[in-house]
Order: sequence, then structure tokens, then C-alpha cells
Amino acid sequence: MAKKSSGRPTSPHYDIVIIGAGPVGLMLSTCLARWGYKIKHIDNRAEPTPTGRADGIQPRSLDLLRNMGLKAAIMAHKPAKVFEVAFWDPPKKGKGIVRTGTWASCPSFIDARYPFTTLLHQGLIERVFISDLEKNGVQIQRPWTIKGFTSDEKSNPEYPVEVNLEHVDGTHRETVRAKYLFSGEGARSFIRDQLRINITHKDPIQHVWGVMDGVVKTDFPDIKMKCTIHSKHGSIMVIPREDNMVRLYIQIASSTDADWNPRKTATEEEVQASAKRILHPYSIEWERVEWYSVYPIGQGISDKYTLDHRVFLGGDACHTHSPKAGQGMNTAFLDALNLAWKIHAVEAGFADRAILTTYEAERKDVAETLLAFDNKYAKLFSQQAPAATDVQAASEQTTEQTEDNDFIKTFKESCEFTSGYGVAYKPNMLNWSPDHPASSPLINPAGIKLRTGRLLNNSDVTRVVDANVVHLEQEIPLNGSFRIYVFAGKPSVTYKALKDFAFHLGSKRSFYSSYLRPDLDAVSHHEKTNPHSLFFTICTILATRRAQVEITRDVPDLLARYRDYIYADDRWDRRVPDAAAAAHAKMGLDQEKGGVVVVRPDGYIGIVTSLAEGSETVDALNEYFGTFCTKKLGDAMSQL
Amino acid sequence: MAKKSSGRPTSPHYDIVIIGAGPVGLMLSTCLARWGYKIKHIDNRAEPTPTGRADGIQPRSLDLLRNMGLKAAIMAHKPAKVFEVAFWDPPKKGKGIVRTGTWASCPSFIDARYPFTTLLHQGLIERVFISDLEKNGVQIQRPWTIKGFTSDEKSNPEYPVEVNLEHVDGTHRETVRAKYLFSGEGARSFIRDQLRINITHKDPIQHVWGVMDGVVKTDFPDIKMKCTIHSKHGSIMVIPREDNMVRLYIQIASSTDADWNPRKTATEEEVQASAKRILHPYSIEWERVEWYSVYPIGQGISDKYTLDHRVFLGGDACHTHSPKAGQGMNTAFLDALNLAWKIHAVEAGFADRAILTTYEAERKDVAETLLAFDNKYAKLFSQQAPAATDVQAASEQTTEQTEDNDFIKTFKESCEFTSGYGVAYKPNMLNWSPDHPASSPLINPAGIKLRTGRLLNNSDVTRVVDANVVHLEQEIPLNGSFRIYVFAGKPSVTYKALKDFAFHLGSKRSFYSSYLRPDLDAVSHHEKTNPHSLFFTICTILATRRAQVEITRDVPDLLARYRDYIYADDRWDRRVPDAAAAAHAKMGLDQEKGGVVVVRPDGYIGIVTSLAEGSETVDALNEYFGTFCTKKLGDAMSQL
Repeated sequence: MAKKSSGRPTSPHYDIVIIGAGPVGLMLSTCLARWGYKIKHIDNRAEPTPTGRADGIQPRSLDLLRNMGLKAAIMAHKPAKVFEVAFWDPPKKGKGIVRTGTWASCPSFIDARYPFTTLLHQGLIERVFISDLEKNGVQIQRPWTIKGFTSDEKSNPEYPVEVNLEHVDGTHRETVRAKYLFSGEGARSFIRDQLRINITHKDPIQHVWGVMDGVVKTDFPDIKMKCTIHSKHGSIMVIPREDNMVRLYIQIASSTDADWNPRKTATEEEVQASAKRILHPYSIEWERVEWYSVYPIGQGISDKYTLDHRVFLGGDACHTHSPKAGQGMNTAFLDALNLAWKIHAVEAGFADRAILTTYEAERKDVAETLLAFDNKYAKLFSQQAPAATDVQAASEQTTEQTEDNDFIKTFKESCEFTSGYGVAYKPNMLNWSPDHPASSPLINPAGIKLRTGRLLNNSDVTRVVDANVVHLEQEIPLNGSFRIYVFAGKPSVTYKALKDFAFHLGSKRSFYSSYLRPDLDAVSHHEKTNPHSLFFTICTILATRRAQVEITRDVPDLLARYRDYIYADDRWDRRVPDAAAAAHAKMGLDQEKGGVVVVRPDGYIGIVTSLAEGSETVDALNEYFGTFCTKKLGDAMSQL
Repeated sequence: MAKKSSGRPTSPHYDIVIIGAGPVGLMLSTCLARWGYKIKHIDNRAEPTPTGRADGIQPRSLDLLRNMGLKAAIMAHKPAKVFEVAFWDPPKKGKGIVRTGTWASCPSFIDARYPFTTLLHQGLIERVFISDLEKNGVQIQRPWTIKGFTSDEKSNPEYPVEVNLEHVDGTHRETVRAKYLFSGEGARSFIRDQLRINITHKDPIQHVWGVMDGVVKTDFPDIKMKCTIHSKHGSIMVIPREDNMVRLYIQIASSTDADWNPRKTATEEEVQASAKRILHPYSIEWERVEWYSVYPIGQGISDKYTLDHRVFLGGDACHTHSPKAGQGMNTAFLDALNLAWKIHAVEAGFADRAILTTYEAERKDVAETLLAFDNKYAKLFSQQAPAATDVQAASEQTTEQTEDNDFIKTFKESCEFTSGYGVAYKPNMLNWSPDHPASSPLINPAGIKLRTGRLLNNSDVTRVVDANVVHLEQEIPLNGSFRIYVFAGKPSVTYKALKDFAFHLGSKRSFYSSYLRPDLDAVSHHEKTNPHSLFFTICTILATRRAQVEITRDVPDLLARYRDYIYADDRWDRRVPDAAAAAHAKMGLDQEKGGVVVVRPDGYIGIVTSLAEGSETVDALNEYFGTFCTKKLGDAMSQL
């Protein structure tokens, strides 16, 4: 969408310049490339990450990757999957270590499609994104680096950012102009430094850790599990990997040590010798070490994610923490996704620039929660194991019955957070809580189990046109549109309400009709997701059996145009075994009367309303969208 | 494994020469290439199927493709999925057509992992196999054809087959020698003709059909479903396809017509006009026709699949039938798989050549069943729709309540067969039925739900080493080995039986120890499937919770060596909701005492025995394998 009409004639123009092709930069780039933006994306490495680095994909991130159509390519690499975490401690009596308990890494109280962590080399994950980018015409320019930038809306309101780029060997230089600049540079961010944005360190205690990826031969029985091992000789975390590899995190020093030295290091052999002592009486030998590194763990958070809403930071440039809860890549993905759709909403002409302020507010809050969690988790992990008398050390025969020590307790409490399903954005212009001072009594109907700022609950439904059983939450691809789920309840009950809803959607000043496609008449009848508007995709879910649905009779034309997004809520669900309409029930919506759920383009719920007869439901949504969209809607218009 | 030591020095030597790279040839080639054989594979087409042809992958075939690691590549093409079939007929009163019922294409009484038919262009499926072949060093030689062959074990017992090949333009020729020759040439088989093998035609009634693949614009509501439409103007079958395409089968003539002419044809326009009349009052327009063809439906079966067990036929070369039940490709796959493992078992030195006789016996019997089914199905489909008064024509409001007419009845009865789960090989040397005159009373224990000659039931279990929840029936890849499932019941109950079983497996004259790997001492400890023998992979399933399993304590060393194939039977299953050990229960095995299931390399059950203390269980398996393996086993040896 970039034009070359303004700015210095010699500078190429882009919608965005992205620095760094790690997870955060690649996610941002992939989204924006799919939505048609012109991107300059550089990275100072000659090629994608060859070894090591972050590699844990949490359950919710896997949902996201599936929604993007990238999951299969990742799974093709046969990653390791962590379903459970095992805890090992010194035995009550005697030497060595014993398993004191195991816990599901994504327990069944979380309704996850993929209740496991996926572990794969970061470079392979990066290549999946890079290959998708190439399909959309974006090549990462390597090895190039950023040398300077300016941002000035006054002198160039359309392309306010000027960026100077240079090949790492200094042989070539480029100056480009852009609407936005993004730093996905990692912890050492040139852009953040230039902006003089401070990092606040959360935790005074620091640790030095060794991390070693390799292929081992061992009789330790849990080598294919995620394990936390505390022994009298130190602590290890075991993380399984693809291709028979295993990653070991081994603590080398702590700022609570008498001789603390943050630059303390250890050789590969020293770390292996230490691992052998910790794992005793089990043996371990390395057949091959793929990667070994020593690094201090610090906990820091960037004070600002942007100064002018033109130059943004995300990922490790904003927050650093221990890698042990496997959150780095996942947090990076969600930073990028959050920013991507907001830039799109603004640049495509739907939303006010003001929504860009919610990026820092939402994502910094999540980072604070992550750091608070990581702090607690890392401290517990790094500290000396509790004395055997402090926990009811389980015998090898009864590995399950043990009273939780603090470490295990923290871990359990944090499962929802680490799975990614716990991310909750606070109420703001985009997320209308029950306390929102909106005038409509329809908002947040009684009994609702959905929470604005959180993900839609997972549910199975049957697609009407082809009888395919599908995952409702996955149906709309990541197309940058708001997702409007019309849970239509029982057709005999809601017939008029549904008709009224469609009528008022179609009326001239609705949020929907105010943003119709300019090429409306030329849209192919095969267009599925955006037949009317580029900003909305609508699903209609009827609380009846598929064979009883006749679309032309039961669904008003406007909604029926989304014929591939009409579903029967007729699948049995073990979580609501007695519900006649399980998807309605899982959302906490009345199975007869239904309700309307608006989900933001990134999958988080914006507002939930009743499905009422008359204009009220559309009025409520007009009020919601009217808060941040560029046009005056519905009543607001008539009141002018 | 081919050697060049015998035969004419000028002829290259292969293990097998395969003619034709359609589904049957590709499946055979892919299996044998993976298992290390040297293959000459030719096809007379310059490239894979460009359009049209068979395209239905049935549920059981999808299981097989997944087991081969090929499912993801097929699903990446976003095939259409058929979950339901809709029946349309003339209404009781008035004109046009109405939906008289729908039925699941793979109803829930079939315990399928993928209860749908997958529809994808045959050329795309072929390319998935071709790409796998290339990874194993096999290139299809195109466009080449076979000009002649001889087979004479007397003059060359090791490479008895000589084959003359020629480029289709006649410019190049080759003569090669092989152990086997396979015709996957399709209905017009040069090899079959040369062998003077007759085709027996099963059905005197013939039909001429038009088939058209294309993109349409229509208001017919079931255009994305599989439909059988009978109207006063003729019959159509609708099959959805990938990329918004739809396939229509339209009857043009029948031998029961007064003016029957098997060479009757129709233009594209005539067929479209006919389709419009049949679909009235719905409209249909073609945006694009990808492929159109007219062909007569004949039903034939080859009298023999081989004469000398060196030159074999498979796929369409053996059986032709109507394409409408979507069985062609699936039957071809299973022909090839059945032959592949038997050739492997013989050539790798495990089985007597006599097992090759079971290929024709097993597969011809399945083809007879298919033709009998297809005959009935095709006749019903082709005949004039039953008068509206003959069936309780359902109103549009109650589309479900209709008494089944013969057509629907046949369809329902045949679901198990068409899904692929109904394939049942009769008792023979490989499949020991309850009536087998074996001396062991352990065979086919009371309560067993498994049937020899059929597939293992699907079940979920938890892998012990990494706590991954897995599909047990998918765990062992298609490695050409027999799969021995030791359902170990409750460890406290079967401790001695399991120990005894492992002890006798390990004793010198057991079927297991008689076929150890020659490189046993050099096998990597990372080897998962074949650590001891190339002919066996063993799974051990304990009826207990995963956290309670300690492999070193609960599983004898020989079985524990397959550490990635040890499972806890601790997953809840809706089909046996009250079972403590669902997998045991689904197999009909005692949840305390367990049992042993031997599955052939193609996934069909060979024998089921109790898990008894002492030597009896291994004795029974020695007797089973002793019937067809190359060495004298166990007691048989001591009795000599």
C-alpha cells in the first residue's frame, strides 16, 4: 500500500521497516505481508539461527500457528512434545535423586486443543515464516544492520520515518522512508538505545546458567520429559528436543553465592561433570554436543514500547527473563500479532490512530505478569532444593502422592499462564468489560463464560454446507478482520432477532455498512471471508442439528452470504456432556436465545452482547466500534 | 538388495520392475524403496495424471498414509472432505427434486480416526508418492513402456524375469533382469494380455457415464456434499473437490435402454444441459470445466493375479468397476501393500515363498466383494428413481424421517466396506481364525473383539517415556516388520507372565531369536523400531496409569529395549466409558490379564493369544510363525 508520491524522490518508500528476523520480527512481517503491505525487513545475521536459542511453542501459540496455516510445516520437523513435567529431588533418606512428582504441562482444566509444549530448533521455526514471507514477495535482507533513523510527522505526515541501513561489512548503504519502524532486534536493541528508553530490572538476584544441546546416552528414565532436578550437587532442567537431542540448563552461579561473579563461566567439560554429579545414581554420556553457551539471567522490562507510535519495540527488545518457562518465542509472537492488526486497522482506514496506544498498554502488562511469574519461578528453581524433610518425598513406588512444595505449587498455578491461555488484556477501548459505562444493557449477558480481553473458548461444530466437523475458533483464518460470531440459538426462538440483526447490520449507518468494500460489485461469489467488508468476517452458529438447517430459510441473506461460515452446534463435548448445544454452553450463552461475540483480529474478545429483537444489538456494536473507528456510526450520527 | 553376480553381464539387475506409476505402482514402489530394494519403475505418460481420474481417499487409506508419514503432504493441498452423503429425489407431489435424507459417509458405529472421505486430484496424490520415492533414490522413468518379458526360474533362479523396455517414441531400448515384475498398468494391461489371463465380466448390464470436473455457480444447497440425485430427467452424482471444484457424474445411457449403444456419447454442452434439467428448480452455471470425459462402466475381474509368483498384477489391471463408491485408489493401495510386505518377507529371508500365494487369495477375494457391492450400488444408482410413492418422501422440514429405500439401505450397509475398515482377509496361513486346528488353547482368548484378517482397533494410550498421548495403532511406522502388541494387563497380575514371555522370546529357538539382526552388536542405542530383529517390533501396553510405571521395574529387559513403545493404557474413551483400561477393553482383552496380538506388516491381525505364565504364549507364536517362516522353531525343532 506504500506510495512513492511523497518524501525525497531518491528514497524508496515502505509501509514498515523491520529490524531483526527473530520470532517477533518474522510474525509481524508475515502478518503485514499477507495483508498487502510493503515491507523492508533486515537482519544482521547471514542466515537464520543455526543452533540453540528459544524453542518452546506453547499450546496457544500452536493454535495461532495453525490459524496461520503454518502448524503443519512446523510439525513436519517432528518436534518433541512435552505433556508432563517431572520433579526430581534428593530422597528422604540416602543419596542421589528420586522423582517426587509429575504434573501435566497443560492440565485438563485448560481446554486446550494441543495440551503440550512443542520443542523445535528456533532456526527451523524461523524458516517456516521465511518461506511464507517469500510466497508474499518479502525477502529478508541479510546481513544488514540499522545505522540511524529519524521520525518526524510534521515534515512528512505520511512517511515520517527515515531509516539508514548498512551492510554489516560497511560496503553498501541505503536510506529508506517508512510509515513505521519496528525493532525486533533482541535484548541489545540499537533503536531502544537511540530512543534512550530505559530497561527497568525487576529482580536484583541474578544467575549464571549453562545451556547445552546434545545427544546423550543415559539410563535416567525421564530424559524425554521436561524435568526439574534438584540435588545436593546443584540443579538441572531437562528439555527434550527433536532428533534424539536433549537440552540441559545447569546453574553455574547465583548472586546469592558468597563468591558471586556475574562473569563466572564454565567449560563444556565442567558442566558435563556437574550434570553427572547431579544425575547420580543415573549415568549420562554425551555422544555429541550441538550447542553450548553460558549466560547470566537478568530480568528487565523496557519502560516504553514506543515514544511516537511510529517507532515500536517488541519481543526481547522489551523484556528479558529466564528461558526456563519457555515463554520467549510465545511472548514475541503475541507482541507482533497485537501490533500487526492495529497497524493494519489504522492504515487500511478503519481505526483511529489512537488504537496504537493500546499496544504498549496491553503487551507491557502481559510482560509484567510474565516477569513476576518468571521471577518467582526462577528463584524457586535456582534455590537449593527444599530439605527432604520439607516435602513428603515420595517413594519410588508411589510417585504421585506428595504434598506440593512451593516450587510445585507455583508451577501448577502458572500452567494457565504458561500455556498462553491465561493471557488477559485489561479493559480498554477495545475490550469492554462488564463495568464498561456503555448505555446498552445487552452487553455481557448473564451467565456468560467468555471474558473480554481473553480468547474465545474452543468448540467443535458442524459446518452446514459440507457437514465437515470443524474447530469453530480456527475457522476464520488470520485475515486481519474482526470476527463476529452470531450464536443464533434456536432458529424458532431467534428467527426475528436474527432477521433484525441482519437488517440493522445492512442499514446505512451501521459499523458494518460503513466499511463496505470499494470493489463490492466485483467480488467473486467464491469469496468466503470478506464478501462485503475487508474488516469483518461473520460466522452464524445455530443451536440445532445440521440436517435440520436450511440456510435459505433459517439464515438472513446478509449472514447467508458467508455460506462457508454457517454451523450447526450439534457436536457432543465431554466438558458440557448434557448440553444440547455444546458450543453455546461452553461460551455461557443461552442455548435458545444465543448472543453475539465480537473477536478482535488477534483472537481476543472485544465485546459480548445479547441477540435481541429490534436494533439494540447492532446499536450496541455501533457503540463499541464507534469508540475507535474512523466514521460516525448509527445513533451517534443521528444525534449530531 | 539386488546383486549383479548372475544373469547376462550386459543386463542391469533389479529386485523388481514396476510398470505404471498410478496408485498401485507407486504404493508398491514406495514400500519397497523404503525397505531397501532396487527398483526399476517406468510409466508411459510423460508426467503424473494432469486432471480427472480417481480421487477418493477412504478413512482407512488415510490411516495408512498417515502411518507412512504421507498424510500431511496430502492434507497440505486442502482436499475436500466428505462427511455426509445427501439423497435427492423427486418430491411426493410437484416437480423438481427434494432432499429425502442424509447419511454419514463413515457413521459413528465405525471407530474411524478420520470419519470422512478425502477428495483430491489424483495427480497431486501421485506427486506425494513420487517425492517420497525420490528421497529413497527411485526416479520414475518416463515416458517408457514395456515391450516384452520372460520369466524362467530354471535358467536363472535368482533373477528369473527378463524385461524389455522402450521409450514411447521408440528411440531407446533397455533389457533388464529382475526377481519380480509388476503390472500396475491399469485396465489395459499389456502384461495381463501377454499372460493370457482372462477378465471375467460380472455384470451384464452396462452404463455410459459422463464425468465433469469444474467450477460452478449454483444455488443448489448441497453442492459441497456428496449427493446422489434422482430426477425424472435422469441421475447425477455430485462429488466436491478441492479449489472450489465439483465433480458431476451424469448417466448418458444404459444397456437396459431400448436404443442402447455402448459407444453413445454426449458433448460437454449436452451434459451440462442435462444437469440443468436434473437439478431444476436449482440453477447451475459452469465458470470453468477442468476435465470432461465419457466412458462406459464395465465390471470385470482378472481370473488370476499371477501365474508364477514372479510376475504379478494389481490395481485396475485386476479389477474394474464404477468409480462412484470411490474405491479405485483405495483398493489399489491395499493390493500393493499386501504384495509389498510379502515380497519383503521372502526376499529378506524370513518367509517361505509360499506366502506369495496368499496375495491373490486375499486380494481377489476383496475385489470380488467390491464388485458385488459396486454392482448392487451402481444398479440402484443408475436405475430410474423409485416412484415418489415408493418412499416416504421427506418434506423439506423433516429431512431426516424417511423409510430407507433399497438404494439408501444398500448404502448404509456398505459404509463399513467403503470406509476400508470392512476389509477382512479370510483364514489362511497368515490369519489364524478361532477354527484354526492349532494345538494351543491360548489362541483367540474368550471375549476377544479383534478378528484375525482385520485391522487392529484404534485406541489412545500414553507413551511412558515422554507422556505423549498417542494413537496406538499408528505408533509403529510402516517398516515391513510384524507388530507384536503385548497387552500386559495389570503389572501386579501379569508380572510373572510378562517375565516368562520375554524369557521365552529370548530363548534360542523362538521365532524372535531365530531372526536376530546380523549386526546386532553394532545397533545404535537410539534405534527404536528394530533393535534386535528386522522382522519384529514390539509394543508393551500396561493397564495402569503412566505415573505408576517404572520401566526398569515393570517391563522385562527384552521388551524394555523398545523403550519408545511402552505405553500406559490410561486414556478415557467414549466408546468404553467405564473401562479402567480402555485400549484393553476395546480389543476385548482382559484388563487384568492382557493378551498378545500379532499384527502383520500391513496392519491386519494374524493371531491373538492369551498372555500366560510359562512358555505357552511363545510356543503358540512359534507355531504360528513356524507355519510360514524359513526356520524350524521351538518345539518343532526339538521334535525333529
